[in-house]
Amino acid sequence: MIKVLVIGAGAIGAFYGALLAKAGAEVSVVCRSDYNQVKQHGFIIDSHPLGRWHFTPAQVLKNAADFEGTADYILLCTKVIPALDRVALLRPAVAKNTAIVFIQNGVDIEQELLTAFPNNEVVSGLAFICCNRVGPGEILHLAYGRLALGNLPNGVSPKTAQLCELFRQSGIDGNATENIVTGRWQKCVWNAPFNPLSVLSGGLPTLDILKTQESLVRSIMQEVCNIAAASGHPLPDDIVNINIAHTYAMPPYKTSMLLDYENGQPMETEAILGNTLRAAQRLGVAAPHLESVYALMKLRELKLSD
Amino acid sequence: MIKVLVIGAGAIGAFYGALLAKAGAEVSVVCRSDYNQVKQHGFIIDSHPLGRWHFTPAQVLKNAADFEGTADYILLCTKVIPALDRVALLRPAVAKNTAIVFIQNGVDIEQELLTAFPNNEVVSGLAFICCNRVGPGEILHLAYGRLALGNLPNGVSPKTAQLCELFRQSGIDGNATENIVTGRWQKCVWNAPFNPLSVLSGGLPTLDILKTQESLVRSIMQEVCNIAAASGHPLPDDIVNINIAHTYAMPPYKTSMLLDYENGQPMETEAILGNTLRAAQRLGVAAPHLESVYALMKLRELKLSD
Repeated sequence: MIKVLVIGAGAIGAFYGALLAKAGAEVSVVCRSDYNQVKQHGFIIDSHPLGRWHFTPAQVLKNAADFEGTADYILLCTKVIPALDRVALLRPAVAKNTAIVFIQNGVDIEQELLTAFPNNEVVSGLAFICCNRVGPGEILHLAYGRLALGNLPNGVSPKTAQLCELFRQSGIDGNATENIVTGRWQKCVWNAPFNPLSVLSGGLPTLDILKTQESLVRSIMQEVCNIAAASGHPLPDDIVNINIAHTYAMPPYKTSMLLDYENGQPMETEAILGNTLRAAQRLGVAAPHLESVYALMKLRELKLSD
Repeated sequence: MIKVLVIGAGAIGAFYGALLAKAGAEVSVVCRSDYNQVKQHGFIIDSHPLGRWHFTPAQVLKNAADFEGTADYILLCTKVIPALDRVALLRPAVAKNTAIVFIQNGVDIEQELLTAFPNNEVVSGLAFICCNRVGPGEILHLAYGRLALGNLPNGVSPKTAQLCELFRQSGIDGNATENIVTGRWQKCVWNAPFNPLSVLSGGLPTLDILKTQESLVRSIMQEVCNIAAASGHPLPDDIVNINIAHTYAMPPYKTSMLLDYENGQPMETEAILGNTLRAAQRLGVAAPHLESVYALMKLRELKLSD
């Protein structure tokens, strides 16, 4: 039986873990904030596309060090924020044949794990999903759900293909991706404008932002494309237009950064904006709009820390 | 006796009007929000550098149309916001020999008045002052106070020189300025970064902004210098460094835009940022940092109008 350990069982971790359990894997979770609730009652997954079900993890743990057995896969699903040491979270549970799968936001977040675990398979994951934690152990899956998975620096290993197959069996699109790093830059094209603008505007949904300041959104998107290309990951020529059209077609949407902001949680400013901008500086790519928005996010964070 | 009408007797209008009364002029005021209080009790001016005194205007009016007599000078001291029609405010009280003196923030705000009053002297004024309305009819003058005055498009008329002299008699520096339009751009070098950054950061004082995001502040300042130069108003080479050094030396300060924001009042986004950016676009000057900050202010205003 395939053994999976999910580290960071928030909305994303609990949802994808629950899917793997549904497909027959033995799934354990490390969860901190909802530990007591989940230990006693497991998770309720309420999915608009897939129905409502109960997910009882094999082991519910406070720390990866308490995990008993050997994980075939570890799914790392925490936020990427400076206060969380991803390597330290993983280390105690990584065994010889464990594949490390990080389903996380941001760009340039690969190297830290590759360096720390040179002998393990490291798989990069991108979740395209609307999914929220609505209470302790309660996950609401509103829409979408595609999960793109690929090995680093590229390609798809048999183990990654197997994981995609498991996700497909559970009813969502597990999408083996040859160039996952390019995919990560591609996702950043959307995240880099909409996440910070939703916060800095004081809480506007995506559609209001786009309707009134499409030009700023496009400028930031184009800067991300330029940085991606300079990083060796050229994106399709029409990617900005496609993202704009797609966002006009979406229902008004609150970004993850806005939800974190409204809930007083740390935001993924560094993973999404800081890393992108550091790549720009390293590669000599001009990104003045992104630079402005990042600086304003840092000021906002400074004010929040008052 | 010199007759002065102040239109917009907020902190700036009441303070400078009170000084002219002190110097012997007959000063009347148009004030809307504090009309009843001022009509009955006049103004209390509490000035740290100049002491505390009472200012009883000759006439206290709700509208300029009610002004009796002929003004030698009208001081226009309202905010510059799209909802206020400056020409309509002035028109009823402008006589043949009236000099129109606007003591207001922003750039490119001259032409509207020059077009509307082609046969009157139009004088541009810049106030360098820390001065707040602390209650109905109560003005607190904390520091500074210099008033730069100059004719349009340039030069200093005898009437402007006379007004400067009156201000000097009252104890503040009335500063006749040959190139007042250049002075207006120069003031914008400071206003364009600090006003919006104080609002968008969620309320940080100037020193925190400068300490953590000096680079963004400098970028915006440099863009304003470039736009000013393209407009025919080159600023001194060291102006950015001087502004930065000066701001480090100032006590932490809340900008006027932040005070408006905190008080739920309309902000001078268009006069300070919008006009600067429109000049950039007209002249083909790149200003991506300013552009980003302006777009974010518009998003913030949209959210506030919810």
